[in-house]
Amino acid sequence: MPDKNIPDIVIGRLPIYLRALQRMLAENRHVTSSQELGERLGISAAQIRKDLSQFGEFGKQGTGYSIDYLAEQIRQILNVDQVWDIAVVGAGDIGSAVARYQGFANRGMQVTMIFDNAPSKIGSKVGSFTVKDIANLESDIKRGGVKVAMIATPSEKAQEVADKLLSAGVKAILNYAPINLTVTDDVRVQYIDPVIHLQRMTYYL
Amino acid sequence: MPDKNIPDIVIGRLPIYLRALQRMLAENRHVTSSQELGERLGISAAQIRKDLSQFGEFGKQGTGYSIDYLAEQIRQILNVDQVWDIAVVGAGDIGSAVARYQGFANRGMQVTMIFDNAPSKIGSKVGSFTVKDIANLESDIKRGGVKVAMIATPSEKAQEVADKLLSAGVKAILNYAPINLTVTDDVRVQYIDPVIHLQRMTYYL
Repeated sequence: MPDKNIPDIVIGRLPIYLRALQRMLAENRHVTSSQELGERLGISAAQIRKDLSQFGEFGKQGTGYSIDYLAEQIRQILNVDQVWDIAVVGAGDIGSAVARYQGFANRGMQVTMIFDNAPSKIGSKVGSFTVKDIANLESDIKRGGVKVAMIATPSEKAQEVADKLLSAGVKAILNYAPINLTVTDDVRVQYIDPVIHLQRMTYYL
Repeated sequence: MPDKNIPDIVIGRLPIYLRALQRMLAENRHVTSSQELGERLGISAAQIRKDLSQFGEFGKQGTGYSIDYLAEQIRQILNVDQVWDIAVVGAGDIGSAVARYQGFANRGMQVTMIFDNAPSKIGSKVGSFTVKDIANLESDIKRGGVKVAMIATPSEKAQEVADKLLSAGVKAILNYAPINLTVTDDVRVQYIDPVIHLQRMTYYL
């Protein structure tokens, strides 16, 4: 069970640590330090040690971290030592790109279904998936026991889709539509909107 | 010029406020309050007032904010009262989806060029763009005076591309490749990696 005393911003850094550790493993590395991790990530070594210490003791003073062990521990903390099925809603450019994305492998996620409402898209292929009819969204998601979804519909449809996902039992939504969603307290939402990231940078230019 | 005393996390919320305000304008609304904005965004009214007060006085106690005026002020603060040209590097699924993305309009951004290194892609069409040869990346970006770029290449190529973008004068990079980039201090980088967002949510499931 998640520890409610740990700030979400700390949780938000764990996937970044895990990604760096998995990259080191791919480079055939076995031991690292908070200093090295910090340099790779532009985060202070002290911050990394403090974040990790909230979950236990993962390294020994002076000998650093076993990359394999630390990665496995973070996977367990984030619940990605299992593979989560993901439903994608919207088979446009973004939804199709996400459904075909190779970057989920070995990171605890796999897309298992994609939905659209356009007759021209329903039944067509996106990568290895056949686009499903959004009319069957709730029943298909319930039957599949899917808890994680991505919304890649136009903004105008996103809240309606979110409501259906919630009633089908989805508990985590990654929303690509550029609009804030209203959900119940037991559901998490994260947002991806490239313009938000870009505008945050143009402030400094 | 950016005020260095304003935390980046505050800057990061301004685009979210702006997006909500623009949505209200599209709904033909003219006046709002920190309470209403807060409810739409799941951010406390006090936080919104505090954030905005760092930049000046945008509303009157009791009468709320003029949506038009506040949106215009935030656009000026974020430097998106102008339109920034964007170069996209990588014409795969993600790069192509981003290049065709309709969501940049009226938000201070426009894609103006897309590059790839694959002979099969160079010269082909992505939306209204003809894919350019990455061999000409630096000269094309310099000539265009482009300061903002998105990297949508495989991880292995992302740092090399970033180095070239920097030498061409790019100052802001939105990186879709799931790897941290090393850049000089005068360059901003933001990251979009759906797995990072998903793993942050599965912690709570």
